[in-house]
Amino acid sequence: MTKTDIARRVYNHTWKLDPIIRSLLDTDFYKLLMLQMIRGLYPDVNVTFSLTNRNKAVRLADEIDLGELREQLDHARTIRFTKKEMIWLAGNTFYGRKQIFQPDFLAWLADFRLPEYELRRHNGQFELHFHGSWMETTMWEIPALAIINELRSRAAMRSLGPFALDVLYARAKAKVWEKVERLKRYPDIRISDFGTRRRHSFLWQRWCVEALKEGIGDAFTGTSNVLLAMDTDLEALGTNAHELPMVLAALAKDDEALKAAPYRVLEDWQSHYGGNLLIVLPDTFGTESFLRSAPDWVADWTGFRPDSAPPIEGGERILSWWKERGRDPREKLLIFSDALDVDTIERTYNHFKGRVRMAFGWGTNLTNDFEDCAPREIAGLKAISTVCKVSEANGRPAVKLSDNPEKATGEPAEIERYMRVFGTENLVRRPVKV
Amino acid sequence: MTKTDIARRVYNHTWKLDPIIRSLLDTDFYKLLMLQMIRGLYPDVNVTFSLTNRNKAVRLADEIDLGELREQLDHARTIRFTKKEMIWLAGNTFYGRKQIFQPDFLAWLADFRLPEYELRRHNGQFELHFHGSWMETTMWEIPALAIINELRSRAAMRSLGPFALDVLYARAKAKVWEKVERLKRYPDIRISDFGTRRRHSFLWQRWCVEALKEGIGDAFTGTSNVLLAMDTDLEALGTNAHELPMVLAALAKDDEALKAAPYRVLEDWQSHYGGNLLIVLPDTFGTESFLRSAPDWVADWTGFRPDSAPPIEGGERILSWWKERGRDPREKLLIFSDALDVDTIERTYNHFKGRVRMAFGWGTNLTNDFEDCAPREIAGLKAISTVCKVSEANGRPAVKLSDNPEKATGEPAEIERYMRVFGTENLVRRPVKV
Repeated sequence: MTKTDIARRVYNHTWKLDPIIRSLLDTDFYKLLMLQMIRGLYPDVNVTFSLTNRNKAVRLADEIDLGELREQLDHARTIRFTKKEMIWLAGNTFYGRKQIFQPDFLAWLADFRLPEYELRRHNGQFELHFHGSWMETTMWEIPALAIINELRSRAAMRSLGPFALDVLYARAKAKVWEKVERLKRYPDIRISDFGTRRRHSFLWQRWCVEALKEGIGDAFTGTSNVLLAMDTDLEALGTNAHELPMVLAALAKDDEALKAAPYRVLEDWQSHYGGNLLIVLPDTFGTESFLRSAPDWVADWTGFRPDSAPPIEGGERILSWWKERGRDPREKLLIFSDALDVDTIERTYNHFKGRVRMAFGWGTNLTNDFEDCAPREIAGLKAISTVCKVSEANGRPAVKLSDNPEKATGEPAEIERYMRVFGTENLVRRPVKV
Repeated sequence: MTKTDIARRVYNHTWKLDPIIRSLLDTDFYKLLMLQMIRGLYPDVNVTFSLTNRNKAVRLADEIDLGELREQLDHARTIRFTKKEMIWLAGNTFYGRKQIFQPDFLAWLADFRLPEYELRRHNGQFELHFHGSWMETTMWEIPALAIINELRSRAAMRSLGPFALDVLYARAKAKVWEKVERLKRYPDIRISDFGTRRRHSFLWQRWCVEALKEGIGDAFTGTSNVLLAMDTDLEALGTNAHELPMVLAALAKDDEALKAAPYRVLEDWQSHYGGNLLIVLPDTFGTESFLRSAPDWVADWTGFRPDSAPPIEGGERILSWWKERGRDPREKLLIFSDALDVDTIERTYNHFKGRVRMAFGWGTNLTNDFEDCAPREIAGLKAISTVCKVSEANGRPAVKLSDNPEKATGEPAEIERYMRVFGTENLVRRPVKV
């Protein structure tokens, strides 16, 4: 007897579209935390988010069909939070705290829709911008990136026959599982999935998340993907991102206000959240400058997330800073989340073990590692470094320096000004892979 | 390329068990409402629930394997409410009301497990009893019935080949859809699914519920099955059942208290619920007697659920009673739920249209109608009338008369006493099908 469900098959082949984003919860948890704060403190700020493909050699707009991209973006704009999702957001415990989202924020969220977008092709790349209220445009970051990345992998696989596809995923699964087995050697390690934005596809991310859940058990502490957290009874994880200091810096009236912006962000954050959500992201305008000028209370926060320096080097710098400020690093938390793979995770874990608490937010190399999996080399299956960043706020250009000038974004003149204000010690140029 | 997911298939064939009950929410909503009230007012009452198969000719214990039944019951006892389910119960709106379940009830429910059972075979039937605290044993009613009925249909289909099974479900689907098409003619009708307890199987109930949702749209107002309500974003429906007056009657100290018990139940209910949950179930000891002695405030309740008299006759009786008591039936609600099928629904709807608000709780003939669907007559696919009723409370025998003495349960001497106290006017013996 044939195993095909004919009705389902016919229904499927009459679909207009196989949507990539099917839920507004299919985003990173930190977007919701930031959104609540943005709405509370900066409801009138307008910002533009813009897509950047750091791998210029990859001509995204040649690989992905413009019409398909529009269809996916348009479809995402039709989605609302469902009743069940709203109930879960209101009732779930996040970071051990109930009702982390205020009723008036949730009431507003219930009517939320993604705002308009601006899209054109230029020189083989997409120019994709989201203009408007910060508290609307911010929600595009993750779905826009997930759509771009999944459309790209769909296009790359279009030429493969059914067996080639089956083997492709078989190899990719075996590859993830080898990583799982290596991580199993460290029962005290703490790993979470941070791979939504650059995942190969939604279904593949789900597979990876469920594989980690079965494979490393309690060592898998959760996922940044809110939908997967809800559906698989995992913790939703994440705190805050570069967009907060970037926007506050752009809004700063003068150089003095600019210099104070990274700490102003922390004060804003403290007004909304506490406990394990007090994680400093120090590298927006260079970690060195951040640490040097930081008020002492910053050392009372739960931890740091070094995000662009090499993990051991970046971690050591923060450990010494805690010690300088008289804090015991063993009571502190470092969250590593930049370009991790099992090698870096293992090395970093072994290096810091016993000296500081650690967590690893594993991204692209978890959810989009298809190297050597295809039956022949397929360039489009290699993950690329796409980001969707604030490019301006209230008409003023936004800048990110980071500890690696290769990751810097913004207008050259403005970047120069920021380098003058924050200094350039310890900024080291390193190739950006993912 | 083969469509079989080999890993999934191997996983499946190494299962010990294909569980029938996989969630404690796979029950009728009214059980949860009643449970909250029972826990609030009668936490110390002990009752026994007992399985009864009204179709004695069907030798259940010959059709169903005792060991399989034990495995399913044991599996159900391992289940707890999940975090997501608890969040949904706490956060969902039921009957237009938020937080219908109190925090302390939910805290208690979070640790709930089904209590022990007592099972043996006797004369080709199962003797299945649940002894213990009312607030635990009551939760067995629906899963016990669902397990019995699904094990019976699984056994009945064991001899069918894959094509015969495919055609069986094809015919059953066509049959449900014909009913859907007939109901579509009445866009103002209000239908809901009450078919959990005697369903053919869980998956089949889900198919029927989703078919009604697609097929009759807003005319489908929801389902009594809490899990399906949650999973398909439908309203969870149901109010109260015979067990409340049965237990209160059994506990009554003397004949006078016995006579007052049916109204005492309503007072208890009002202390917990309001609005559309104020539905009178009048037939436990005969509708006629209930109406005759009812205090006037009973006529202020939202509606009645006649459950054992023929719907038109039973409905007319209640309409005249409302009029006698000076109430306008057009502002009242009748919920029909006894042995409905499309014919009765249509006839009843056309009969009362414009004279009273109506809702139809469609049960066994929705979720377990496989007549003429099998390639050859299979007796085990014909739904039977199984119930799981209170047989005693605090050691005293419990009785139900109903408007149809064929549905009466209890010890003969005690039935006789109840008939003396409540009278026997208008009790009419009619065959019980489902």
